[in-house]
Amino acid sequence: MFLSFEGIDGSGKSTQARLLADSLRESGQEVVLTREPGGSPGAEEIRRLVLEGDPDRWSAETEILLFTAARRDHMERLILPALAEGKVVICDRFADSTRMYQGLSRGDLRALVDTLHDLMIGREPDLTVLIDMDPDTGLARAIGRGGAEARFEEFGPDLQRRMRDGFLALAQDNAARFRVIDGNRPVDTVASDVRATVDSALR
Amino acid sequence: MFLSFEGIDGSGKSTQARLLADSLRESGQEVVLTREPGGSPGAEEIRRLVLEGDPDRWSAETEILLFTAARRDHMERLILPALAEGKVVICDRFADSTRMYQGLSRGDLRALVDTLHDLMIGREPDLTVLIDMDPDTGLARAIGRGGAEARFEEFGPDLQRRMRDGFLALAQDNAARFRVIDGNRPVDTVASDVRATVDSALR
Ligand SMILES: Nc1ncnc2c1ncn2[C@@H]1O[C@H](COP(=O)(O)OP(=O)(O)OP(=O)(O)O)[C@@H](O)[C@H]1O
Ligand SMILES: Nc1ncnc2c1ncn2[C@@H]1O[C@H](COP(=O)(O)OP(=O)(O)OP(=O)(O)O)[C@@H](O)[C@H]1O
Ligand SMILES: [Mg+2]
Ligand SMILES: [Mg+2]
Repeated sequence: MFLSFEGIDGSGKSTQARLLADSLRESGQEVVLTREPGGSPGAEEIRRLVLEGDPDRWSAETEILLFTAARRDHMERLILPALAEGKVVICDRFADSTRMYQGLSRGDLRALVDTLHDLMIGREPDLTVLIDMDPDTGLARAIGRGGAEARFEEFGPDLQRRMRDGFLALAQDNAARFRVIDGNRPVDTVASDVRATVDSALR
Repeated sequence: MFLSFEGIDGSGKSTQARLLADSLRESGQEVVLTREPGGSPGAEEIRRLVLEGDPDRWSAETEILLFTAARRDHMERLILPALAEGKVVICDRFADSTRMYQGLSRGDLRALVDTLHDLMIGREPDLTVLIDMDPDTGLARAIGRGGAEARFEEFGPDLQRRMRDGFLALAQDNAARFRVIDGNRPVDTVASDVRATVDSALR
C-alpha cells in the first residue's frame, strides 16, 4: 500500500508520517518512510539543485521538470520496488504538493504539472491523508520550526489560505483516494485518527 | 538566426561551430556560441548531474527529463534573449542529439523525447548543419581526442553506424531545416562549405 501525507506548511505531515510508520511497524508491517522532493539518492541531488540558491534560479517550468525527474527516480528506485516486496510506503508529500505549490503559487501551471505527471509518473498513492488546518496556525508552526530551505515558505497568510482551499478542492475532486483529517488537535489525537483511517482503508 | 550543429561523435561539430562563429564575427555579426547539454549556468549544473557518475545512475526516462529541464533553462536564459537582441546563436548539439542518443541508443524512447520537446521547448533551430561522416573515422577521432565524460561514447562502431543512419533519416524528414555537409574532408574545406551554406540560408 502506497500512502501519502499532504497539507499546508506546518500542518504536521512529517510528524504524522513518522508516527504512522512507528505504529504500523509495531503492528508487524514492513514500512518504508520517505519524503518528497527527494527520497532516493538521485532525487535528493535534484532536490538540492531545486531548493538551494537564488529563488529566481529556475523558471517555474524548469522547476516542474526537475521535480518530475526527481519523482520519476524516487518511484523507480524506491517506491515501486518496496511496493513490489509487499511493504507499506509512506511518503511525506507527493505529487499533490507539486500540483498545489507549483500549480497554484506560480501562475497557472496546474495543467502542465498534470500533463507531466500523466506522462512520466502515471500513478497516484492508494490513499492520501490530507491534514487540514487553520492556515495561520500552520504558518506560525512552520515559522517556529525554522529550517534552511525557506524558499517555498516565504509565502505569508494569504497564500497559506489559498493553499488550504486548493488542497480541500483537490480532496473533493479525488474523494476515493483522499481522507481529510483535522490537524487542529493534539498530536496524539491526530495520530490515532490517522491510524484508524488507514486501518479502515487497508481493510 | 538560430543554428545548430549535429552529427556523430568526433564528426567535427565543436571544431566547425567555433570556426563558423569566428568567421561570422569577422563579418561583423554578433554571435553567441553555446553547446548542449549545458550552455547556461543552471543547465551546466544539470549536465554535470547527468553525465558524471555511474552510467546506471539514472533511467533513460529520468535522463530525458533532466535533459529537457536543462534545455528549457538554456532556451529561457541564453538562446531566446540572444535571438531577441538580433544575435546569431550557434549551438553545438541541440534537441536532435537527444532524439538520436536517447531515442536510438536506449530503447524506443524517441516518442517520449518528441512529446517532451513539443510540450516544454517547442522550437527548432532555423538551420541545422549535419556533419556527415564515416562512422569508423568519427569513432577514431573521438577516441583520439579523449575526454572525461566518456559515458555517451562507450558505444563502438555498430552504434556509431546506427547513429549516422538515424541522423541522415532525421535530415531527410526535416529537409527544410537541415543541411548535410560531408565531414570526411580537411577542416578548412568543411568550414568554407559550412559558411557558404549558412550564407545562402541567411539570404
Ligand atoms: N498537532 C500538533 N499540535 C501542535 N504542534 C504540532 C502538531 N503537529 C505538529 N506540530 C509541530 O508543528 C511543527 C510543524 O510540524 P511538521 O514538521 O510535522 O509539519 P509539516 O506539515 O511536515 O511542515 P512542512 O510542510 O513545513 O514540512 C513542528 O514543530 C511540530 O512539532
Ligand atoms: N575535418 C577534420 N579532419 C580531421 N580531423 C578533424 C576534422 N574535424 C575535427 N577533427 C578532429 O577530430 C576530433 C573531434 O573533433 P570535434 O571535437 O570537433 O568533434 P565533435 O563532433 O565535436 O565530437 P563530439 O561529438 O565528441 O563532441 C578533434 O581532435 C578535431 O581536431
Ligand atoms: Mg514536513
Ligand atoms: Mg564536440
